[in-house]
Amino acid sequence: MATDTPVRDQVSDGSGSATRSGRYAQPEVDLEALTDLLDGRYADVRRLVRGQLAEHADILLDAETMSRADYRERVKDVLVEMAGSGHTGLGFPTEYGGGGDIGASIAAFETLAMGDLSLMVKAGVQFGLFGGAILQLGTKHHHDAYLRKLMSGELLGCFAMTETGHGSNVQALGTTAVYDPATQEFVVDTPTELARKDYIGNAAAHGELAVVFAQLEVDGEGHGVHAFVVPIRVDGEPAPGVTIGDDGLKMGLNGVDNGRLWFSGVRIPRENLLDRFASVSPDGVYTSPIESKNRRFFTMLGTLIQGRVCVGGAGINAAKVAITIAVRYGLVRRQFEASSEAEEDILLDYGLHQRRLFPLLARTYGLHFAQQDLASALHDVLTGVNEDEHFQRELESTAAGTKALGTWHATHTIQECREACGGAGYLAENRFAALKADSDIFTTFEGDNHILLQLVAKGLLTDYASEFEDMNQLDMVGFVAGLAVDTVVEKTRAWQMLQRVKDLLPGGDDWDQEAGLLDPDYQVAMYRFREEHTVSSCARRLKRGMDNGMAPGEVFSRVQDHVIAAGRAHMERVVLEAFVDKTREVPEGSDLRVALTLLCDLQALVGIEQDAAWFMQHGRLSAQRAKAISREIGSLCRKIRPLARVLVDGLAVPEELLRSEQLIGAVRGPVAG
Amino acid sequence: MATDTPVRDQVSDGSGSATRSGRYAQPEVDLEALTDLLDGRYADVRRLVRGQLAEHADILLDAETMSRADYRERVKDVLVEMAGSGHTGLGFPTEYGGGGDIGASIAAFETLAMGDLSLMVKAGVQFGLFGGAILQLGTKHHHDAYLRKLMSGELLGCFAMTETGHGSNVQALGTTAVYDPATQEFVVDTPTELARKDYIGNAAAHGELAVVFAQLEVDGEGHGVHAFVVPIRVDGEPAPGVTIGDDGLKMGLNGVDNGRLWFSGVRIPRENLLDRFASVSPDGVYTSPIESKNRRFFTMLGTLIQGRVCVGGAGINAAKVAITIAVRYGLVRRQFEASSEAEEDILLDYGLHQRRLFPLLARTYGLHFAQQDLASALHDVLTGVNEDEHFQRELESTAAGTKALGTWHATHTIQECREACGGAGYLAENRFAALKADSDIFTTFEGDNHILLQLVAKGLLTDYASEFEDMNQLDMVGFVAGLAVDTVVEKTRAWQMLQRVKDLLPGGDDWDQEAGLLDPDYQVAMYRFREEHTVSSCARRLKRGMDNGMAPGEVFSRVQDHVIAAGRAHMERVVLEAFVDKTREVPEGSDLRVALTLLCDLQALVGIEQDAAWFMQHGRLSAQRAKAISREIGSLCRKIRPLARVLVDGLAVPEELLRSEQLIGAVRGPVAG
Repeated sequence: MATDTPVRDQVSDGSGSATRSGRYAQPEVDLEALTDLLDGRYADVRRLVRGQLAEHADILLDAETMSRADYRERVKDVLVEMAGSGHTGLGFPTEYGGGGDIGASIAAFETLAMGDLSLMVKAGVQFGLFGGAILQLGTKHHHDAYLRKLMSGELLGCFAMTETGHGSNVQALGTTAVYDPATQEFVVDTPTELARKDYIGNAAAHGELAVVFAQLEVDGEGHGVHAFVVPIRVDGEPAPGVTIGDDGLKMGLNGVDNGRLWFSGVRIPRENLLDRFASVSPDGVYTSPIESKNRRFFTMLGTLIQGRVCVGGAGINAAKVAITIAVRYGLVRRQFEASSEAEEDILLDYGLHQRRLFPLLARTYGLHFAQQDLASALHDVLTGVNEDEHFQRELESTAAGTKALGTWHATHTIQECREACGGAGYLAENRFAALKADSDIFTTFEGDNHILLQLVAKGLLTDYASEFEDMNQLDMVGFVAGLAVDTVVEKTRAWQMLQRVKDLLPGGDDWDQEAGLLDPDYQVAMYRFREEHTVSSCARRLKRGMDNGMAPGEVFSRVQDHVIAAGRAHMERVVLEAFVDKTREVPEGSDLRVALTLLCDLQALVGIEQDAAWFMQHGRLSAQRAKAISREIGSLCRKIRPLARVLVDGLAVPEELLRSEQLIGAVRGPVAG
Repeated sequence: MATDTPVRDQVSDGSGSATRSGRYAQPEVDLEALTDLLDGRYADVRRLVRGQLAEHADILLDAETMSRADYRERVKDVLVEMAGSGHTGLGFPTEYGGGGDIGASIAAFETLAMGDLSLMVKAGVQFGLFGGAILQLGTKHHHDAYLRKLMSGELLGCFAMTETGHGSNVQALGTTAVYDPATQEFVVDTPTELARKDYIGNAAAHGELAVVFAQLEVDGEGHGVHAFVVPIRVDGEPAPGVTIGDDGLKMGLNGVDNGRLWFSGVRIPRENLLDRFASVSPDGVYTSPIESKNRRFFTMLGTLIQGRVCVGGAGINAAKVAITIAVRYGLVRRQFEASSEAEEDILLDYGLHQRRLFPLLARTYGLHFAQQDLASALHDVLTGVNEDEHFQRELESTAAGTKALGTWHATHTIQECREACGGAGYLAENRFAALKADSDIFTTFEGDNHILLQLVAKGLLTDYASEFEDMNQLDMVGFVAGLAVDTVVEKTRAWQMLQRVKDLLPGGDDWDQEAGLLDPDYQVAMYRFREEHTVSSCARRLKRGMDNGMAPGEVFSRVQDHVIAAGRAHMERVVLEAFVDKTREVPEGSDLRVALTLLCDLQALVGIEQDAAWFMQHGRLSAQRAKAISREIGSLCRKIRPLARVLVDGLAVPEELLRSEQLIGAVRGPVAG
């Protein structure tokens, strides 16, 4: 009953305006070609990592059966073993034995998210956060001292930024590092209980060194947050002056030894300041190539952007596992007699089940392509191919936004897929338990998602002005309010976008009625219009609030949900465009193109449907057209149904990682589709 | 910055039409009065259970530190200890030492959800499912044999309904029970691997008896699913012919010993058929007071309705814990400088944070009151106060729907609250880990939520016709399609509702523009209109599909999302009305009434906002009014902000159960609000 024959689809749907010219021919998708397309430039490294994960698939069982202490050791051991294969060093310079390829390193890392997520996070802590800080914030002296050893896993380290009292607001950290010229040392202290370092990976058991973020003070003057290399363990025991606590049991990721660090008069040599962006001379003179304190701070943070890119990618890849299991379960599980009294129907033949899962599948594809673009842009910036400052600021913003969308998508997809697998989905062996618990924190990692979308909006509202990064919330409100009334929109990013929408749709306000629902130009124009409008409306609201004499804080609080909405609208457009662009790369008329276009259309239209009220309120969607979109979504789902299996198989999650014998293996009925 | 002074609110909001007459005076809510209102008729038993949970609060820590085997024993021991206090027997007849008070027993059970959820589920399995089946499906003989022993916890048992291959579709179970007149025994068998009993609580370790649901066959004739008492363990070992498996590690609820059961030629005496609705004479003659096989089956199931009521209540009470922790965290945590450069702002003073949490708080209240009404109606039906058949069918439908809404609310609230607590929310000691993992399965327990909403819609579409319960999906499509064209709506529940909307709003189609947003009659009318319209549109679609010659299964598949939407619209109306009614019980003009009304308005308007596209598409909401609703929601949140602490404290989650020392205790800053 699910497979739409072309004729029936035309007849029963009747959404003539929405269907492409001519009859719809069922495409046949070549699995290998699909996977190659998804794997892209880094197919080799993705295959390598998938192979390693399959080989170490038993760690998924260890995670359930071992004590927490043993599991931590096991994760560490696999990590060190994997380090030997080289893919964890892909992002480091070739002169230290690394791969010198940031893009490849991101591809490798995010692929790890198909396996045990403790292993992935531990790798992220070691090679991304700790190694990345040494590489990006340190200079040759530090690279020589640490890079080879940390790449091999011989030296394990921490990234000690977050404190109990401060997460997203890093500038307000409490830990201090005071320079003592007498001994040419920094003295590191934890002044209050809220200033203890918290949730620090590798801290509770394995880390020897920590890159500690602390307020630098030289000769009584504060210079803001800087990073220092601090030994925290010597021969397995806490170093003098260092107290180490264990964060204890967590919702998930219990293979990672998160802990707390307190410093009491810990003395480290002057050379332990990671001094790429600032240094202190032996006699206590502070110098930095970047004058503004704020600017310096955000430049430092900016180099660590890779962490956000990696977490976003991890979310997207974790979602791949969930959607693969749920779709495959839907293809073997039968429930209720709907078509005939004789036999129960395949779950995925139910319209509702398709409606629950296929939009998630489509979005997984869309985010995957957007993430690929992002990683590629990051590669260009970090390797110096693109040195445009504006491009860099935009990249930071896109990284923040992709991380937010990718990780929320993981949370949402894993939940929906678990429910779609019923009670079987609740058993640990079927992976959802760990997927859900482990990935939950991704929405908080590397910045709370709402804060990240605010960052995206800030960039749009200030058109990534050179002051963009320096601005806190108050500054941003002030900046926007400071623009002259008439230029408030023109000075923001919104203006350019509005122009582009007009270029795309020269037909004036009637375009909405004329364009086909499946025309990607129409779809993108809708997303662009929303973006433009939410950004400019935000700007106006901020300005009006200030003009009406409200305090900036109150203005911000009241406009905050519009700010978030603007950031989200921008990112949704970025993701859709990435998907559309990728689809257009595939030869026109090919079956692969047809199949990808089904998913892309679904992603585009579901996004409009979910925000239909907004589009209607803003005159861009009639009630009739909104209904046509919902009908078209149903039709797209029915066309995707016969392709469901190949579309999840294309995501290439190794069979060994699916486990789920009970779900899709032993209890397998006749396989449909 | 959060506390709205009356004047400022009027000025800055400017939604004159939406505000009540006169100035808004900040209400002062008496905590005790609020808790009394929420506790209602069963305040004593709720207090008793809360006290017991506080006393046993250390089980929350045991859940994290003990081995799975020890934790199971611990849960069992606490269960038996609690049984001694009597509240777990409140639902059983007084002649067996029970309380004879269904309403009280539901209140007690759902309050258990504030504590360790394994304990609650184990109690539900023992006293609700197993005990309930003996009570409701058995007769005096069974009551005499088992009730006292099971109430005391001396005899632990299972409710063996679900099989690996069949969850929601109970009628298709595979287990067989064949009557052998030669020995006057039933022979119970598991014919296929898919027919093994699965996910059965108390099976893996503690159960002695199981109520087994199996296809009864007498003299070669099948009579459908019946329930039998089958001994599964003797002296701790599996009974002859019974194989017992362990479901192993689960996402959560690991204090409950879920397992699998296989039967191979297991012989039980004829008397072990639970024979309230059907019996087999010694010489093998099957008799039942209910002629229709379907009808009999659904009558049987109907008596077990209490399980659904309890799970829904459990979800709502688990959500209370999450929202309490998140709101209290938001009152002590500071983040970023938004109001001034000098100090970071309290998290809950941010507009977005209010927007994230307060609608969840409001909905928790609304669902609590709806659940109270439901429990009260159930009490009346089960105690024979109300014997109206139509009322009973409606009750079953409401129970299904409240369970769906309550458990989805739990999943959603716990997730949002965890994210609102950042990294701290991820630590097991702060409760979200267990809350999230344990409650996850509630959306599947006692029927998948989507299936339950379908059941609700089926009732509406057939106006709870006497055939209502017998109908499967095919029948239902046929029933609706069989109505004459003109009567399709009149024959459904929708017609009556439409009339009531008209009675409420005699002013014709302009009412939407005239009524104030905060007028509960307006709010309820909007919900009623949506309900009426979705139900009748469903009926029309089903009929049209059949008229167009589509197969019933295909019609159903295509209309399924509308069916679900109709069920949901009905339930949202039921919940809102419960909230409005409860608010009206509080003396007009009292501060408590003002505070409750804020929450009720928020619940009502957020529901309209979330579905604004639908209301706009159906001509019931203008773009301007939709924007006014969003503004009003912001204003309501700001008014609720100073009441946030008392409104969560009113939910009365014992301090001992909040744990969260790190979140809201040791790291406590100056308490705001």
